[in-house]
Amino acid sequence: MNSFAVNSRPATDDQAASPEQALLSAVRPEAAGAPESGIVEVFNYGRGRQGLIPLWVGEGDMPTPSFIQDAATRSLAAGETFYTYQRGLPELRDAISRYMSRVYGQALPAERFFVTIGGMHALQMAIRVAAGAGDEVLIPSPAWPNFLGAVGIGGAVPVEVPMAVDPVRNRWSLDVERLAAAVTPRTKLIIVNSPANPTGWTATREELEAILALARRHGLWIIADEIYGRFVFDGSERAPSFHDIMAEDDRIIFVQTFSKNWAMTGWRIGWLECHPALGQVIENLMQYSCSGVPAFIQRAAIAALEQGEGFVQHQIERVRRGRDIICSGLAATGKVEFADPAGAFYLFFSIKGEQDTRRAALRLVDEANVGIAPGTAFGVGGERYFRLCFARRAEDIQEAARRLAAAV
Amino acid sequence: MNSFAVNSRPATDDQAASPEQALLSAVRPEAAGAPESGIVEVFNYGRGRQGLIPLWVGEGDMPTPSFIQDAATRSLAAGETFYTYQRGLPELRDAISRYMSRVYGQALPAERFFVTIGGMHALQMAIRVAAGAGDEVLIPSPAWPNFLGAVGIGGAVPVEVPMAVDPVRNRWSLDVERLAAAVTPRTKLIIVNSPANPTGWTATREELEAILALARRHGLWIIADEIYGRFVFDGSERAPSFHDIMAEDDRIIFVQTFSKNWAMTGWRIGWLECHPALGQVIENLMQYSCSGVPAFIQRAAIAALEQGEGFVQHQIERVRRGRDIICSGLAATGKVEFADPAGAFYLFFSIKGEQDTRRAALRLVDEANVGIAPGTAFGVGGERYFRLCFARRAEDIQEAARRLAAAV
Repeated sequence: MNSFAVNSRPATDDQAASPEQALLSAVRPEAAGAPESGIVEVFNYGRGRQGLIPLWVGEGDMPTPSFIQDAATRSLAAGETFYTYQRGLPELRDAISRYMSRVYGQALPAERFFVTIGGMHALQMAIRVAAGAGDEVLIPSPAWPNFLGAVGIGGAVPVEVPMAVDPVRNRWSLDVERLAAAVTPRTKLIIVNSPANPTGWTATREELEAILALARRHGLWIIADEIYGRFVFDGSERAPSFHDIMAEDDRIIFVQTFSKNWAMTGWRIGWLECHPALGQVIENLMQYSCSGVPAFIQRAAIAALEQGEGFVQHQIERVRRGRDIICSGLAATGKVEFADPAGAFYLFFSIKGEQDTRRAALRLVDEANVGIAPGTAFGVGGERYFRLCFARRAEDIQEAARRLAAAV
Repeated sequence: MNSFAVNSRPATDDQAASPEQALLSAVRPEAAGAPESGIVEVFNYGRGRQGLIPLWVGEGDMPTPSFIQDAATRSLAAGETFYTYQRGLPELRDAISRYMSRVYGQALPAERFFVTIGGMHALQMAIRVAAGAGDEVLIPSPAWPNFLGAVGIGGAVPVEVPMAVDPVRNRWSLDVERLAAAVTPRTKLIIVNSPANPTGWTATREELEAILALARRHGLWIIADEIYGRFVFDGSERAPSFHDIMAEDDRIIFVQTFSKNWAMTGWRIGWLECHPALGQVIENLMQYSCSGVPAFIQRAAIAALEQGEGFVQHQIERVRRGRDIICSGLAATGKVEFADPAGAFYLFFSIKGEQDTRRAALRLVDEANVGIAPGTAFGVGGERYFRLCFARRAEDIQEAARRLAAAV
């Protein structure tokens, strides 16, 4: 279950070890034990196939809009090629503050926001604040594999807490009692991803309140990954958020990214949000990890926030349409089962009678020419499932649904 | 001496603690104990002053050449805005291989090179391979403060080994016996920065051989920071390198950056070099820290390597001239002492009678309108010194020398 529980160092005094084995044996166990992405195997198998529809990665099909690119180009032409603020350009922190205050309906000052090299880097720094060697971290599972990876590399122990499908609502749901039962004296952190990759689970306000109460009771940190917060399917503007219920001094760190809303996966820019009292700690973690984010990329991010609302709305509309197409297309086969995703842009589904999803994902590359991720990549409770990303133009999703229906 | 030896957590049950103190008290000690950059205080004090000559940061005054910028712009226009290879674009890894093979006069295959978010990110990943909680890391000192910062955040204990000025050669020098004496059963890694920031120490081939022999004897890793390798002042093409003496299976990881040679500090791109057997480990560390480097920035880096040799030569020439001007200008005062820097682009000097260099650096902002870094920022043995960067146009260096001479 837990890749980090295994000490992968072979004996260093093994006379028969090759030079390569000897080198690997000297690698720190946290680094050596980091799991390889379970998506990459299928990706490498199918990469470059003619006509393949790639739904394996969490990425849409639209390139970054040109008004965002233009801002980067202008910044470069103006010579913004030097070191910059470790916490982010003041203009970008202001723009994030305005955006977040608008979306979450409250004043969130610029001092709360720290620009990062994408959401992953924000997550890495947040984990360093909250947990390290000897600590345990609760992760509702199935989950984005990078949570497990980053926690383990940081020396802490990831503890997966299985989620389940609520048969009445046909939705994934988190049993907060079960989460509470997993708390030990070593627990320091809960990672809450809502709306969730890969399941689409979207916590209700009541669920968030129960999680926060648990965290307060035990003095735990929460890392809130709400990056899919605007991709919800119940007609509301956004998903419930810890912003709606938290007090100023709660131990909550938010991680965010420009990747999804503004089609900027390849730009590697995001932000971390926390109480301003942690500002110097975050600045130091930034200094000693990546030493800032390129200024010209930050200019592009400002353009995204200030001129990108129409584009975000367009993306959300596309994702809603993709969801409808794939859900109805696969449900019609009678051989595919899934809980309706309440948020994010993934369908997490099983195929009746299909147990070995890793092998099946490889087979579907050959037989359907569709790339999907095996559920084995997403940890405990994901083994029977597949994940596909429906943030793509309707024609592709329609065709993928047709091909998958024919193959199952 | 060592910021990480201090547990900075206040008591968590202190009833009088403010909400801010309570939050800070819950931060992991490795993160809370990370030292603030000692350069930033002076930088913030002098930032924005009219006419100030800024020599405090390790950065030249030239913006990135336009042929490098153009490559990024073209890539953006071509829609390279998606996720990319975790190890780096194959074309860039090939270009790095060709560049390094040429400079170091041996075949260094592309599989050895991994593209990173700058040299700092390469260093962070290298440390994660080599050392963690409970390990000790030897760092010859005075040193670039980020070595100490990154080691401490990673949970290992930095052990500073003082260097000294050899009075005969008037050069900084590393006593390898002293380094050997600092090795304990917990030692896992030596960080070797040559040519060195801030001292200009440039290891001879014999010194590198002695360090490598020590590492082999004890099974230690070496992180080799040779980013200033082309900035040397004895007429040779480059500094001696571990590349000249190492065997294939030596535990050496190189960290590199595009920042200095190609004036790309603000682009945040560099590389890590190691035995290809570590490839999957490095890929995983990349995945769970920054998840790749923007493709359009990698295209700029390819242009730098393939068309940038003339620019690098120009930079080196400028740096040599800056060194001559500042050394002769300050020596003429009779009140300034320094060992001639053998490499890199810093002068590390003391002012006779000046003990409190932190306060003096602030005073020199007021009295000379020149920004320099206090030696206190560079750890054990640096306290009496100041560092200035002479990678700047001759007119500025001339004027800075004049103003400093007047003020001391």
